[in-house]
Amino acid sequence: MLSEADIIRLFFTHPARNAVLGVGDDAALVAVAPDMELAVSTDMLVEGRHFFADAEPEKLGCKALAVNLSDMAAMGANPRWATLALALPRADKNWLGAFARGFMQLAREHSVDLIGGDTSRGPLNICVQIMGEAPPGQALRRDGAKAGDDIWVSGTLGDAALALAHLQMKIALEPEEFDRCSRALHTPVARVELGKRLRGIAHAAIDISDGIVADLGHILERSRVAAVVEFAKVPRSQTLERYLPVARQALLSGGDDYELCFTASPARHERILALSREMDLPLTRIGGIEEGSGLTVSDERGRKLDFEAKGFDHFR
Amino acid sequence: MLSEADIIRLFFTHPARNAVLGVGDDAALVAVAPDMELAVSTDMLVEGRHFFADAEPEKLGCKALAVNLSDMAAMGANPRWATLALALPRADKNWLGAFARGFMQLAREHSVDLIGGDTSRGPLNICVQIMGEAPPGQALRRDGAKAGDDIWVSGTLGDAALALAHLQMKIALEPEEFDRCSRALHTPVARVELGKRLRGIAHAAIDISDGIVADLGHILERSRVAAVVEFAKVPRSQTLERYLPVARQALLSGGDDYELCFTASPARHERILALSREMDLPLTRIGGIEEGSGLTVSDERGRKLDFEAKGFDHFR
Repeated sequence: MLSEADIIRLFFTHPARNAVLGVGDDAALVAVAPDMELAVSTDMLVEGRHFFADAEPEKLGCKALAVNLSDMAAMGANPRWATLALALPRADKNWLGAFARGFMQLAREHSVDLIGGDTSRGPLNICVQIMGEAPPGQALRRDGAKAGDDIWVSGTLGDAALALAHLQMKIALEPEEFDRCSRALHTPVARVELGKRLRGIAHAAIDISDGIVADLGHILERSRVAAVVEFAKVPRSQTLERYLPVARQALLSGGDDYELCFTASPARHERILALSREMDLPLTRIGGIEEGSGLTVSDERGRKLDFEAKGFDHFR
Repeated sequence: MLSEADIIRLFFTHPARNAVLGVGDDAALVAVAPDMELAVSTDMLVEGRHFFADAEPEKLGCKALAVNLSDMAAMGANPRWATLALALPRADKNWLGAFARGFMQLAREHSVDLIGGDTSRGPLNICVQIMGEAPPGQALRRDGAKAGDDIWVSGTLGDAALALAHLQMKIALEPEEFDRCSRALHTPVARVELGKRLRGIAHAAIDISDGIVADLGHILERSRVAAVVEFAKVPRSQTLERYLPVARQALLSGGDDYELCFTASPARHERILALSREMDLPLTRIGGIEEGSGLTVSDERGRKLDFEAKGFDHFR
């Protein structure tokens, strides 16, 4: 039977390319570039809350890192190091192998070193902390939005929530629709490169993990401004469009999008469209920042849409 | 009922004295001193494994940070920042208030900023990551022990394991004995100051969380050396002494000591004793490092003691 030491040695010890000292001591040691600030974030994934008990472990490993990379993206930080703490109901070699494969493959793609962690027996719980570097004063914060800014969103929203609604039998997607939406749910792509390229362009940014309404709401709150979003402009897949108006909740308040929402001066409009072309990634202006407080979503005739404003809350 | 935002705002948002940006954005931002390396460690505490379901939340908050501080101590690092990820079965205001009080009080004592975290509903799980600073090349690693080194231990060992044995009804301590031992179990003191003062003195160090046998074993393995420890010299309380030989397992292989074990050249003997006096903290030479591999514990006549060599393993 696998011991803790076996688990660490077999699955989670990899050469640390960016670290002074990696897995295996009381702490890891890294050298942050002297001209950089360190960005630090942590996300905990709990079985039954963030994923189903039968989730494919390789995709779960990938997603556990992806949601953390997404936080680095939202800061415009360059992800460099991660730690992984795992509580496991049992030491299952196949599960661990697949989980580690998914985690490490994405880590390698982003040149992120796994430098430490912890393992324990317990109800399945995955806690990743990520650390990255950003030039001082250039990180993308939530509190920099200004009245007059455009509001932008990357990619399309709502597909992950659509896949979840299908799994919960609230809607019935066609097989090929479910395939595509379920990729958005299980293997989200963190917009790390976009985040870095938005330094010096965006005034504020956040990653959309709880739906555009809730997450843009965080920017408004921190920046003490208001926003009007045009519902018709919120970027969506053809699949999501096909399930409107039922899918409206998924589009506005669904979870797990991991796209970036950012604000920028209208003077940057052309620059942002050029960036979209260079990166071959849709960047869509969905509305504007105004003075005041609160978020209004308006229909095509400018009428205010009513919607359930809350994002997902684990305790409500 | 408390929302996630309430929990973060009410209990875990404190001024970040050492951070550029604390709780409330996609990531925190800190500036590591340009002449320092960053030490990073994480520890996950799981209900039913690391603590009982009815554990006092204030002590639990304290301990969750203390075990992480202990990793910084073992590296000779100066702890500066922490993140906290919490899975909670319910949002209980009293529990959260007490937990946060215990955590933050110890954080303030060590000038550690809580800079970020995550909360979710789920089986109780506490994952702390700690970050500290150490001068380049001066961190205390596990791989630096040399044949001829003395082996030292701070404080006394085994009291926490004795309290646990009492709770598990394997032994019956007197009330005042249990009080004292249970403090060692529930509110361990991380040897942060000692760790820092051992820079340039110790060749290798580790914190004793799984018993001296297992943890000194990690130093031997990483340093590719052997050790002989004299059982009679392993520092213990009068209480533990009184319960020998039953308490031998607690002394050698009990968990939760959080004292430091370190090796140093015999030339440093006087310097270390002076440090012990200055700090008013027992530092005891318990044996020596030799060439070869493996750990021998010997009795007063130099005979090899048999003992269960394994530390606590969550998966065995």
